[in-house]
Amino acid sequence: MPLCQKYNLKVIEDATEALGSYYTEGFYKGKFAGTIGDIGVYSFNGNKIITTGGGGMIVSNNPDLLKTCKHLSTQAKSNEKMFYHDQIGYNYRLTNMQAALGVAQLEQLESFIQIKKENYFKYKALLNTDNLTILDFRTDIRPNYWFYSLFIKDLKNETKESVIHYLEQHSIQTRPIWGLINDQPPYVTHQTNETSKARFYWEHVLNLPCSSNLSAQDVDYVAKTILSHKGL
Amino acid sequence: MPLCQKYNLKVIEDATEALGSYYTEGFYKGKFAGTIGDIGVYSFNGNKIITTGGGGMIVSNNPDLLKTCKHLSTQAKSNEKMFYHDQIGYNYRLTNMQAALGVAQLEQLESFIQIKKENYFKYKALLNTDNLTILDFRTDIRPNYWFYSLFIKDLKNETKESVIHYLEQHSIQTRPIWGLINDQPPYVTHQTNETSKARFYWEHVLNLPCSSNLSAQDVDYVAKTILSHKGL
Repeated sequence: MPLCQKYNLKVIEDATEALGSYYTEGFYKGKFAGTIGDIGVYSFNGNKIITTGGGGMIVSNNPDLLKTCKHLSTQAKSNEKMFYHDQIGYNYRLTNMQAALGVAQLEQLESFIQIKKENYFKYKALLNTDNLTILDFRTDIRPNYWFYSLFIKDLKNETKESVIHYLEQHSIQTRPIWGLINDQPPYVTHQTNETSKARFYWEHVLNLPCSSNLSAQDVDYVAKTILSHKGL
Repeated sequence: MPLCQKYNLKVIEDATEALGSYYTEGFYKGKFAGTIGDIGVYSFNGNKIITTGGGGMIVSNNPDLLKTCKHLSTQAKSNEKMFYHDQIGYNYRLTNMQAALGVAQLEQLESFIQIKKENYFKYKALLNTDNLTILDFRTDIRPNYWFYSLFIKDLKNETKESVIHYLEQHSIQTRPIWGLINDQPPYVTHQTNETSKARFYWEHVLNLPCSSNLSAQDVDYVAKTILSHKGL
């Protein structure tokens, strides 16, 4: 933030998955993810810690920026009754129904985080071998424990696909972390910096079931099934 | 359609406001608006004849076109689990909650049209002077009677704004028809064809209250108030 202020750059903070996470020490102690940049964005997609079925939210301390965001997301009408659009706008707002659901979901955020936290530590205790571990969160924050990333140190004769397939056969859906942007067809011809670490994690990390509805028995079953894999 | 077929052009039929309207005679007798082009689009925005709070629907007889539309509107993932996006996609789908509401709304479409129709003929009978008339629908269709357009033949010393203001002071919200695209700032420098008729109607037409919740008493009050305007 100081660097951006020095060069007069605005920061759009991607907090899409981080709702409820905050710093517990350091310069930003007590600050929530999404409230540090000039603009913060949250996602309420179906897979997020709270959901409105789809959509998200923009926050800012700067009323002018918020006004501009709202203007652009609601068709850029400077005179609503006269249908006068001063820019090319978008139809990107939540419906009122989604917003109502979001308000109710927000009331449950801390209880969802509590469940996520319990399941996180359960996974972490169960999946702790020389070759398998649940990735840590950084220590200077209270994370929202949104999801649980299994790190497979040595894949041996396996691939992430073969492990996903094995678990699928035991009725467990897992996924890799998000694909590298520079592997996506629209961007493959674009300039790419060194991404060998990103590629390593793309191959070696699986995200485990993490719904707020996940029971302790579910976690046991997932961990037991992973440990039953002879090749890991 | 035959002309477009001859030149191999695809027709995207803007039926955003026309859900439920169909031809009652001629070549397209029995065909609904939105089902004639290669692709038809409907809007379920809050002001439409049925609503999902926002959003809309794409229909087509061509499964390949529909597949492409769905692909582009749902982030263009060719492999959902592996997060592989083969094009730059969009997040334009309805939520499942909106879709559920839309299904329930669709069941009420004909009853909404019935109310709209009754209020249309009531307005038409009441607002029928040398200077004021409710615009007709074309005669070869069953319209959905979505809204009621008051045509003011001679504005005399009034403007549409002054009439809107007069009605507003009597707690009646009216609006002009949509503004001309060539009057909108993003397009004012673009090429424009002859639009004098469009401009004439832009100045001379007001859309009257038309909610499906409008009672017969409401229609009476609106008509009576318009007729009480000394300058029309």
